[in-house]
Amino acid sequence: MTETLAIGPFSPPEREALTAQFGCTLLAGPGDLARLSEDARAAIRAVAYKGHHPFGAAQMDMLPGLGIVANFGVGYDAIDVAAASERGVKVTNTPDVLNDDVADIAVALLLMTGRRMVQASDWARSGNWAERGEFPLNRKVSGGKAGILGLGRIGREIADRLAAFKMDIHYWARSEKDTPGWTYHDDPVALAEAVDYLIVALVGGPDTAGMVSRQVIRALGPRGILVNISRGSVVDEEALLHALESGVLAGAGLDVFLNEPKINPRFYALDTVTVQPHQGSGTVETRAAMAKLQRDNIAAFLSGGPLLTAVN
Amino acid sequence: MTETLAIGPFSPPEREALTAQFGCTLLAGPGDLARLSEDARAAIRAVAYKGHHPFGAAQMDMLPGLGIVANFGVGYDAIDVAAASERGVKVTNTPDVLNDDVADIAVALLLMTGRRMVQASDWARSGNWAERGEFPLNRKVSGGKAGILGLGRIGREIADRLAAFKMDIHYWARSEKDTPGWTYHDDPVALAEAVDYLIVALVGGPDTAGMVSRQVIRALGPRGILVNISRGSVVDEEALLHALESGVLAGAGLDVFLNEPKINPRFYALDTVTVQPHQGSGTVETRAAMAKLQRDNIAAFLSGGPLLTAVN
Repeated sequence: MTETLAIGPFSPPEREALTAQFGCTLLAGPGDLARLSEDARAAIRAVAYKGHHPFGAAQMDMLPGLGIVANFGVGYDAIDVAAASERGVKVTNTPDVLNDDVADIAVALLLMTGRRMVQASDWARSGNWAERGEFPLNRKVSGGKAGILGLGRIGREIADRLAAFKMDIHYWARSEKDTPGWTYHDDPVALAEAVDYLIVALVGGPDTAGMVSRQVIRALGPRGILVNISRGSVVDEEALLHALESGVLAGAGLDVFLNEPKINPRFYALDTVTVQPHQGSGTVETRAAMAKLQRDNIAAFLSGGPLLTAVN
Repeated sequence: MTETLAIGPFSPPEREALTAQFGCTLLAGPGDLARLSEDARAAIRAVAYKGHHPFGAAQMDMLPGLGIVANFGVGYDAIDVAAASERGVKVTNTPDVLNDDVADIAVALLLMTGRRMVQASDWARSGNWAERGEFPLNRKVSGGKAGILGLGRIGREIADRLAAFKMDIHYWARSEKDTPGWTYHDDPVALAEAVDYLIVALVGGPDTAGMVSRQVIRALGPRGILVNISRGSVVDEEALLHALESGVLAGAGLDVFLNEPKINPRFYALDTVTVQPHQGSGTVETRAAMAKLQRDNIAAFLSGGPLLTAVN
């Protein structure tokens, strides 16, 4: 009986590789666990997980032999790590391999929002650029002050790129870090007050929920641009929508939202927002690297070797 | 009688500043020169120029007292500099102040084309992201090989930014330059062969017309992305359209075109192209700096002082 279970919306090549390597059983989501027989569930030692549906104590208790949940993605907020640790279940994720792609999207979102590039694309493609005349002037992006909220591995990649755009780099993190002259702020509101652009690169989960609060958004101010490539949960989305609708904030570039993919339709009406469909790590190269790291963690566990990227 | 003439589509604040400083006469384009009386034309010593209509020997000969044509923009290919030199007319442009903005658009065009961000925006804004599912995977941009065709001031700004995206920088220029380890190619085809992305930062005018030839485009190849922020004239546009339509080239990010703003409508049908309405320097901050530099050159000329940014 198979000892590895793949749960979530894996792509065809991902499924194929998991099946080839582990003879996996595939489930579309954790809700399908109940469809497995008790014997089949008892045989499971490893879960390859993908997606944003919660995987917690209830699901783990249906798999009494479970030893590892290997998550596809750096963000593992769908998985209850405390519940896993209590049960002696290891959790792994796929850090680092996606840093470049996510940082690329963050920088592009900032440039596109400041220079209104989606709107400019529509202008040029309208077929009546000649009649409409010159696209309205927008704002210079290079040379501004950038604030990184959460200076982890992805935050650093973003900061390194923005420094090449002649930006002063400011950041908030749980503690001051060793940086090339970047300015530390011990409070997110103080960070937002100091900068023109706030780029959110926090981890998800309960500790960071709503950290981009009404106060942070207000401190960023009417010339401020917010970029979020982390998780929708870190932003008080109601406060963000209100600030954008009322001009309290100049604009936003967002790859992540609450309730993806059924995002709040108020975003559609906002001309100052650049929207992406959570594609931060969505390249062929990076998804293949993430899938391989997930499989390598499972293989390491099953063979008794050390895990590559353990979370707990 | 006024000695300064402003010719071209100046914006209201630009017109106001020119009029306040010089008591300018304003013309919509060089075609309106004939409307001025012979006496009025004879009084003109300086022209503030903007736009892409040719300004050459015929126009200069209508202004027998002309001493300077101060161009708004770094690219002065609309102005016949040889004809100006023959007549002892100085030409100035507005370099440097726009480098950052143009480089920002170049980098954004590359990221947007590689990561298909306009298409992704449509996907997320469609209102049926949930039904359509995950946006199709695209390609990693960071870490690729970038070729800069024309390593002038703007080309260097682009290269400095792309180096922060962990790219190997290659370039072509008329001669090898002092660089931080970038690779020189003495031929545009060889440059295109060596790289994944070709970013065109040439000056316009007859010397560079069609330099991005069918051979260059073919050398860039089916994984290649072309970015052009310089002038439409430097690209063999028929070859580019054909290459994009037939998959000989992966994609293009274009801020400039032949026959702007009446661009070839075949571009609209191409899903692999990111289009911008020639907005490279189109920010409030930079256009104000360009306008000031143009006025400063005229003021320097009229007062007999040295020109700030002379071309000839």
